[in-house]
Amino acid sequence: MVDPVTGSLSARTKIRRLPDKAVTERSALDSILDEGLVAHVGIIDGEQPFVLPVGYARRGDEVIVHGSSGSRLFRALADGAPACLTVTLLDGLVYARSAFESSMNYRSAMILGSTHRLTGDDELDALRVLSDHLLPGRWDEARQPSKKERVATITVALPLTEWSVKVSEGAPDDDPSDLQNEPWRSIWAGHVPLTQVMLPAVTDQYVPGNVPVPDYVQQRL
Amino acid sequence: MVDPVTGSLSARTKIRRLPDKAVTERSALDSILDEGLVAHVGIIDGEQPFVLPVGYARRGDEVIVHGSSGSRLFRALADGAPACLTVTLLDGLVYARSAFESSMNYRSAMILGSTHRLTGDDELDALRVLSDHLLPGRWDEARQPSKKERVATITVALPLTEWSVKVSEGAPDDDPSDLQNEPWRSIWAGHVPLTQVMLPAVTDQYVPGNVPVPDYVQQRL
Repeated sequence: MVDPVTGSLSARTKIRRLPDKAVTERSALDSILDEGLVAHVGIIDGEQPFVLPVGYARRGDEVIVHGSSGSRLFRALADGAPACLTVTLLDGLVYARSAFESSMNYRSAMILGSTHRLTGDDELDALRVLSDHLLPGRWDEARQPSKKERVATITVALPLTEWSVKVSEGAPDDDPSDLQNEPWRSIWAGHVPLTQVMLPAVTDQYVPGNVPVPDYVQQRL
Repeated sequence: MVDPVTGSLSARTKIRRLPDKAVTERSALDSILDEGLVAHVGIIDGEQPFVLPVGYARRGDEVIVHGSSGSRLFRALADGAPACLTVTLLDGLVYARSAFESSMNYRSAMILGSTHRLTGDDELDALRVLSDHLLPGRWDEARQPSKKERVATITVALPLTEWSVKVSEGAPDDDPSDLQNEPWRSIWAGHVPLTQVMLPAVTDQYVPGNVPVPDYVQQRL
């Protein structure tokens, strides 16, 4: 049954474990997808699931991924095989009083559905959106895909219709008795935030000496 | 067919795309698993793949994951359902001369197989290994799992028998003609390394004021 607010199909994407961590606002989904760079895509081959990392981007109400037309994953996606695309942002380590409640802070989005292959100008637009998400500013300076490169590429879109978001944040959620009883109430507890940082750009050896690192790269660091 | 050197089953885990990125040394697998914190685990439910993030740790020749005994994922894993566990470390952004060759640097390990449930002292040892990997030093200070918490937990092991590793690193791998012909030979190209950093620990509000952040947390920052 489709939830009228979120568009999320409740039967398959309802958060069953730790339901207090479930977030149903579409803005939370978009925020995770727009911050992440790598998704893990699951498909089935025979009776075996495969999970592969891919770069991705959100384009409105869909997620775009692209890969080689020789890839098993992308041939399956082009054929509309049932897929699951998950993006996880690791935000921290949680040191609770008990080993049981110790965990990690994260934001995770899971999208179920079938992809469809994009072609022509629509595919080219999707490739630009992918480039603008992963390497903002690069599309306008780089050489655009040739006919041969386009043939070697499969680009697919997964609609944001059936999804769930789970967020775990902040302080440990200890058992109340551990907050009251020694020795646990007196040990240190807390969390360590994690973040991803970009280091200084490394210029390729074949770039002529007078070519500076572009602003669109510098401004990202 | 099992590869005698790597233990990797070649039929299902052979790297078909970009085979020059395949790495077959077991040490490369261990290195990725020992550096990562989050794995994405794929299982099948009906005809739908699901991909979920989990904390994990390597214990010798297996990977340990644990979760709630109420979780669909962990019940399936306890039953030995076919699974795929993938760990991806994102190392950088690659700005090639062409959009086609622009990509990301990463190290990724994919393990196929069926998990088996751990019990008794073996499970307790696995939980300690998990804690030591995710939160080094914490196990000895935190309250260890109660009987009730143990019942609420499923711990499973996935053997490292069928796996593949893919590594993409360093400078862009441009088409030779883009290195020779203007304007592409004269535009900036290179890569931007990415790394994950830990920020200062945040002490929980209920910790007594005179309790310092432990050395095992401080030394990790």
